[in-house]
This record gives sequence, structure tokens and C-alpha cells, in this order.
Amino acid sequence: MSDVRADDLGPWLSPDDLDLVRRKVPMVYIDVVPVRLDVDGSLLRVGTLLRSPREGGLARAVISGRVLLHESVRTAITRHVEKDLGSMALPRVPASPQPFTVQEYFPTAVPHAFHDPRQHAVSLAYIVPIEGDATAQRDAIQLAWLTPEEAVDPAVRGECVSGHAALLSGAVAHLGRLG
Amino acid sequence: MSDVRADDLGPWLSPDDLDLVRRKVPMVYIDVVPVRLDVDGSLLRVGTLLRSPREGGLARAVISGRVLLHESVRTAITRHVEKDLGSMALPRVPASPQPFTVQEYFPTAVPHAFHDPRQHAVSLAYIVPIEGDATAQRDAIQLAWLTPEEAVDPAVRGECVSGHAALLSGAVAHLGRLG
Amino acid sequence: MSDVRADDLGPWLSPDDLDLVRRKVPMVYIDVVPVRLDVDGSLLRVGTLLRSPREGGLARAVISGRVLLHESVRTAITRHVEKDLGSMALPRVPASPQPFTVQEYFPTAVPHAFHDPRQHAVSLAYIVPIEGDATAQRDAIQLAWLTPEEAVDPAVRGECVSGHAALLSGAVAHLGRLG
Amino acid sequence: MSDVRADDLGPWLSPDDLDLVRRKVPMVYIDVVPVRLDVDGSLLRVGTLLRSPREGGLARAVISGRVLLHESVRTAITRHVEKDLGSMALPRVPASPQPFTVQEYFPTAVPHAFHDPRQHAVSLAYIVPIEGDATAQRDAIQLAWLTPEEAVDPAVRGECVSGHAALLSGAVAHLGRLG
Repeated sequence: MSDVRADDLGPWLSPDDLDLVRRKVPMVYIDVVPVRLDVDGSLLRVGTLLRSPREGGLARAVISGRVLLHESVRTAITRHVEKDLGSMALPRVPASPQPFTVQEYFPTAVPHAFHDPRQHAVSLAYIVPIEGDATAQRDAIQLAWLTPEEAVDPAVRGECVSGHAALLSGAVAHLGRLG
Repeated sequence: MSDVRADDLGPWLSPDDLDLVRRKVPMVYIDVVPVRLDVDGSLLRVGTLLRSPREGGLARAVISGRVLLHESVRTAITRHVEKDLGSMALPRVPASPQPFTVQEYFPTAVPHAFHDPRQHAVSLAYIVPIEGDATAQRDAIQLAWLTPEEAVDPAVRGECVSGHAALLSGAVAHLGRLG
Repeated sequence: MSDVRADDLGPWLSPDDLDLVRRKVPMVYIDVVPVRLDVDGSLLRVGTLLRSPREGGLARAVISGRVLLHESVRTAITRHVEKDLGSMALPRVPASPQPFTVQEYFPTAVPHAFHDPRQHAVSLAYIVPIEGDATAQRDAIQLAWLTPEEAVDPAVRGECVSGHAALLSGAVAHLGRLG
Repeated sequence: MSDVRADDLGPWLSPDDLDLVRRKVPMVYIDVVPVRLDVDGSLLRVGTLLRSPREGGLARAVISGRVLLHESVRTAITRHVEKDLGSMALPRVPASPQPFTVQEYFPTAVPHAFHDPRQHAVSLAYIVPIEGDATAQRDAIQLAWLTPEEAVDPAVRGECVSGHAALLSGAVAHLGRLG
């Protein structure tokens, strides 16, 4: 391993390294469905991000990202929420490590799995109440807080990137509001 | 990427490649607690494997292993159960992708996380009923079917590799038999 | 309590007693979504019952019923499955007591709760794989095994009694097949 | 039903009515394990109440109580937390209706079930973070905030009323801190 530099142990990968690793192993991801809760804990709104992808059009998504080397799942949730909703979002990271579901993304077509052209990813999905001020960051055009009914509407589902319509419906179902 | 051979896309890694990847990203693992159920679904026994590690002594563990590139979690569960309990074990892979817990293993000491000197791993833990004939395979010395009470006994816990005592207790708790 | 006869301790209630109790306390119910699984545990079909209610028309429902005095939830699941699908259904009662959701039914209109004109009921919902031969019993006209896609179709949902469309969608979501 | 007075429809029962109903049907209960969380959502402390029961000695328990007629589970959780921890406790009622476990209590000895001499009860167990000031109310002598390790200590378990040692261990396991 003499050809591995000490800083390779750090969590951030160069584009080439990331490209290499993605051809070797599945990547650990987290998906976060941000929600607004009523004072009694019941679901008020589900947050979605509208982005403008390079290939044009609009794409709706929830918060999603990689777990870095030496990073805990709990830290990754906080980091990705702040990255997408800003540092004033005050996310309430779940007390339990159990995700409400696990979704698998493959670069090739796999029945009943989702598609990610970049990689094979296994993603732990969490519902995270947001208590502070959230605003769309970076490349996101808009943060839309949808009612539970809107979040499972076919039109909204049609705008979602692969897997994220299932995350929205799954989160609404898990919170007992699928109607 | 011209230096990546076509067969690098396959799921099996050379020792060097695995060593390299482990310095770059967390690895996706599954942990499987094998159980025997009564006809009414209630827990009868919890399976553990006794191994003789290179460093001497005895180590108790449940079934554990890596998810390969392009392999589904469902397939990985079946593969690792057959690898450890044989091809006649007839595992009943859970219908839901939701693990009963997620455990994190780090090569360094991290509070409230578990230890794996080889790597950072994020492991999805499932309870899998075994319906067929199971026998310890390969390097395992013995498959022991413990009562729920035995599975959480301090002496048994003391024999477990890092994280696996928590898996045993967590599985027994999840099945409502922690007493 | 001298006016309480010894046989009042038995689980079966006279219509008058049941009527009385329903005006005093919420009733414990179970809802069971019967499913057919593939050999690898993935969801193939979701079972629904078509009934012809007294008030006319057709109503679609899953398996549902009361937990009796001194009866365990596990026994109630088995009893209600056999009552609706026959004694050859071979239900696999879940190993864990944790329901995938809890639904509440009220005789009055309550936001985000379901309606049962007879009573206030708190119902524990379980997904139960069926391994044997199941046939609609008693007052059920038909047992229909739907694909996951059919089970969440708006037309099917529209035929369901209160709460049971949510049970179907919730079960499909919990099994990772909400698409 | 002419002999049922209008006010019988209210949720509160007279001692005689409660006695009668308990001989007819199982009662719907909730068990609440109060917890203190760190800012990143990880478990800091588990709350238990020390009581002095009529029969002498000391008994340790978590929060527990009946769901009333026409009362939602969500409202029952809030009401029982305030009853035991005071009106400044600021409980965070879970967003999901799914309990982390369900425990059954019987007046007679039933294997792997718990004991309640008063009744057959089916109890939905929830973990509820407490954010405000909590103080033992009414008949409770002390509210003790235990570390996760203390909460599963055999000495503490030995002080618990039937079923509540299992609730403590089960909650700690569900939050990934069973060690």
C-alpha cells in the first residue's frame, strides 16, 4: 500500500478516485424526506427540492447524498440537510438508526429497483422534521412544502427523479397519512 | 479510465482492490440473525456461529458479509446465509427492505459505534427465519441454536465479536422476547 | 360484582354486551393484509376480499377483526385469517409484535382518522404471507390476488371500505413496491 | 339501549363500569418511554418513575395509561406524559403511528406475556423525547433519568413492574444503544 498517500484516508475523493471506487463497490447513501410537523407530531408538510438538471427541464427530489469514509450516518444526515436547506434548518435527526425504508439504485435496469446512471447505491431513507428556517441552497431553484395529498399526487410524482416518488409516498404512508 | 479493465466491473475484488476501496469509502454490509420460529411465528431459537479466529480463542458471531457491486440486498442475504449455513438452510428472506437496525463499524474507536479493524462498514441487520437443515460451513466450528434467554446472557455476549452481542439482544428485543 | 355471571369472563360477548362495551372503551382490532411472496421474499400479490354489504353494492376489504378477551394478538391474527381465507391458508404470522402501522377508526368524523359507524377501534396492522390454499369464506364473494400496482390503483382504492385503501397502499409501501 | 344514559358516551368510566368492561374486552393502552436526546438525536437518558405501591416497597415504571373512548392515540400520549411529568414537559409525540413494540398484559399467567392483575391490556409502546422541564407528579416519588447502561442494568430491571424492564431494554435496543 506504499502507493496510497496518507491523505487518501480522508473522506473526500478526487473525481478519478470516486469514478474508480464506483466501479468496485456499492456506495452508501442516505435519503432524507424533510417534513414539517404540527405541535402534536402529526404531519403538516413534506419538503421537496426543484432542480434544473444539466440535461434540461425540471426535476423534483428530496435530500440525498453519500456517507463519507469515517462519517457516521447521523452526521451525514445533518450535513446533507444543511447543504440543501441551509444552516438555519434545525433538522431533528431521528433517535433510532432504523431507516423507514432502504432503496437500491443501479446503473443498469433492475426490476423493482431504482436507477442511478452514476453508480450502484444502497440508500437508507429517513424522515427528518425541520424546525428552523429552510431555504433552497446552491443549485436548487425552489424548496416546496407540499401537503401530504400533494406529495403523492401523480403530477408531482411524475416530476421526481428515480426513486424519489417512492420516497415521498413511502414517507407519507409511514406517517399514516396515505388516505 | 483506460486503465480500468472490463472485468473490474464485476463484483469480486482482488485483495489489492479491496484494500484500496476500503481506504476510500464505507462498505455496504448486511448482518443476518438466523432464527427458528414456532408454528405461530413466535421465537424459539437464535442461531450463532462459533469460529476460531487466527489470533486464537473462540469468537461468537451471527452471519455477516459484504454486498457486492450489482448485487441486491435480497440476494446478498441469501448468499451469505447459504455460505454460512449451507444450501439446505431454506432462509426466509424478509418481505420488507426495512432492516430492524443499522449498525456502523469503524476501524478507529468511535463512541457508541462498533469496531472492525479492516474497514468502515454500514451494516443493515435483518432477522431471517431458517426453515431447512442448517450446518456450520467452512471455518465455523459450530452452529449453536440458543434460547432467547441464552442469546442475551452475559457469558454469551462476552464471546461475541464487536457489534454482534448488540445484534443478538436487538433481535430478541425486536421479537418481543427480551423479558 | 355478584351480578356478573362466571361466563361473562369468556371472550364471546352477547350482542347487548358488545353494544354496551362499545359505548365505554375503544376496541382492540387487528387488520391483516394477506400477501403472496416470491421465493426470495419479494412481493408478488396482495389479497383483498370482495363483500356484498347489507346496504348494497360491493365493498373491498382486507382481513379485519376484534381481539377477544384473553386472546393474544398472535392467536387473533391466525383466527381471523382462517375465518376469512379458510383453514388451509397456512398464514405465516409475523415473528415481531410490531405492526407496520396502527389505524384508528371512530364512529364520528375525525380528521385523518378512519370511520367505523359501530365503534371506536384501535387496529394493529400486519402483513401476513399466505403459503397454502386460500378461498373466500362465508359472506365474502371473492378473494382477489392483486399485483402491487393494482392494489394501489385509484379504481381499487375507490372500492375499499374506510381505512383499507390506506392499508393496501401502506403495505405495498412498507414492502418497497410503491413504485 | 334506552337504559344507557347519554353521558355513558363520555370517555370517563365509573369504577363499576370500568370493572364491568374489563371482564368483557381487552383494554387499549399506551406505554411511553421518555428520553432525553443529544442535539444530534442520539440517546442521552431514559426516564423512569419510582412509585410506592399500596402493597409496600418501591416499583419502577415508565409512563403508561389507557386510551379513552373517542381519544386518539396521539392525544393519549400527550395526556399521560403531562399527567406523570407535568405540563411543562414538552413531549415530542412521534410523527409515525407505528409503535416500536406492542406488549400484551394478562390477569392470568401467559407464557411470554406480561402480568396485570386488573385486566387484559394491549399496549402500544412509544419512545417520546422530552424537551421541557419534567417533574414527577402525583403518586410518583421520583423521576430518574438513567443512562442507557443503567436502564438495562439487572438491578434496575429487578425494580420494574411487569413488562417495564422489557420496555426499557427494548427502547434502548431500538435506539441502537444496547451495547
